[in-house]
Amino acid sequence: MQQEKKPNTPSTAVIKRLARYYRYLRTLHEEGVTKINSKDFSELMNVTSSQIRQDLNCFGGFGQQGYGYNIEYLLGKIGEILGVNEQYRAIIIGIGRLGQAIASSAVFAKRGVSVCGLFDISDSVIGKTVAGIEVRHPDELERFISENKVDIAVLTLTAKEAHRVAETVNALGVNAFWNFTSTEIKLNNPSALVENVHMGDSLMTLCYQIRHNSEEGSNAQ
Amino acid sequence: MQQEKKPNTPSTAVIKRLARYYRYLRTLHEEGVTKINSKDFSELMNVTSSQIRQDLNCFGGFGQQGYGYNIEYLLGKIGEILGVNEQYRAIIIGIGRLGQAIASSAVFAKRGVSVCGLFDISDSVIGKTVAGIEVRHPDELERFISENKVDIAVLTLTAKEAHRVAETVNALGVNAFWNFTSTEIKLNNPSALVENVHMGDSLMTLCYQIRHNSEEGSNAQ
Repeated sequence: MQQEKKPNTPSTAVIKRLARYYRYLRTLHEEGVTKINSKDFSELMNVTSSQIRQDLNCFGGFGQQGYGYNIEYLLGKIGEILGVNEQYRAIIIGIGRLGQAIASSAVFAKRGVSVCGLFDISDSVIGKTVAGIEVRHPDELERFISENKVDIAVLTLTAKEAHRVAETVNALGVNAFWNFTSTEIKLNNPSALVENVHMGDSLMTLCYQIRHNSEEGSNAQ
Repeated sequence: MQQEKKPNTPSTAVIKRLARYYRYLRTLHEEGVTKINSKDFSELMNVTSSQIRQDLNCFGGFGQQGYGYNIEYLLGKIGEILGVNEQYRAIIIGIGRLGQAIASSAVFAKRGVSVCGLFDISDSVIGKTVAGIEVRHPDELERFISENKVDIAVLTLTAKEAHRVAETVNALGVNAFWNFTSTEIKLNNPSALVENVHMGDSLMTLCYQIRHNSEEGSNAQ
């Protein structure tokens, strides 16, 4: 059964665009730019001005007609909408190369998320320190989650183990999953949130475009 | 100016779904499943049967009405559409933690792509071997690309350097970019292909959902 969409609930597409606006505005802000008119912002984002206006209007709108956007203000507002200031805390499960790369990346800090725990079943990493945090055995998950506020579990373990571990962690009270495995996570708890980064699907999209482009090229000859 | 869409050119959304079907079918195939009826496949994919049929019909359709889908056949066909058998070759530029993780991951081999070169400006990795491949200085890019078929450049370097390096590599003849940096790559060459993996946008989407969910919870009390 399709759940009826509530009025004023923005679509995922709107949220994805807001996240993208946020990323751009953040760079402009870092570069010292204070203001941008809607035409320039539209060109930079490759999104029409009216689409941007419409997206912002979902949340009340923050442009001053004819004066463009104040970057610091808009950045703050979009950040607020997206939860940048909520100081969410994440654990990473699976500290192989990808888990280590993600643990060490700036992606969390830039979005106000802090990594508080790392877990892996392999003796070769347990006890080691990655990005300043000690890697623990998953047996410690229960105690750790009961003693620490954990909002997000990042899944960088093998696809095979991902579902079982996600159910366990969800039962311990963590409700949001950032899934880097090749499998999709469907949890028993319908309120659990899963956001996927399926790198393979992305690579396939690129391969399709290459193939399609070269076919066009050969057709043109 | 909006380019007119050619008839029979499937949208990016269709291609993304095909990539997802491919991933699932691949897992089923590995598990020894040979056939799946359209209802089960629809439930597994969380996409309506008619949407799946429509997606496949873009390419001629491969289901046998009433008999469901032959997994090996469908996998082969979708793989063909997506270019899995084209044996594309990739170089990775930026061999920090993320570049190393990606170089070592199964994501390429699973999609028929092979990594043939690794490049980084840092003396601490140049000359080292990652995933069986020696890391080279970007000064060697020109010679390397002239001597090797390179279809894809994976960008795992800093956002600051990404654009300049992408233009250089594009001028050397590499036309497809898999971009992991936080910046968007807009190349002078309009036929260049860029596929982005913006992890930060994905994390922000998840944060928004957490915030929105908890608001709903508190409203309900």
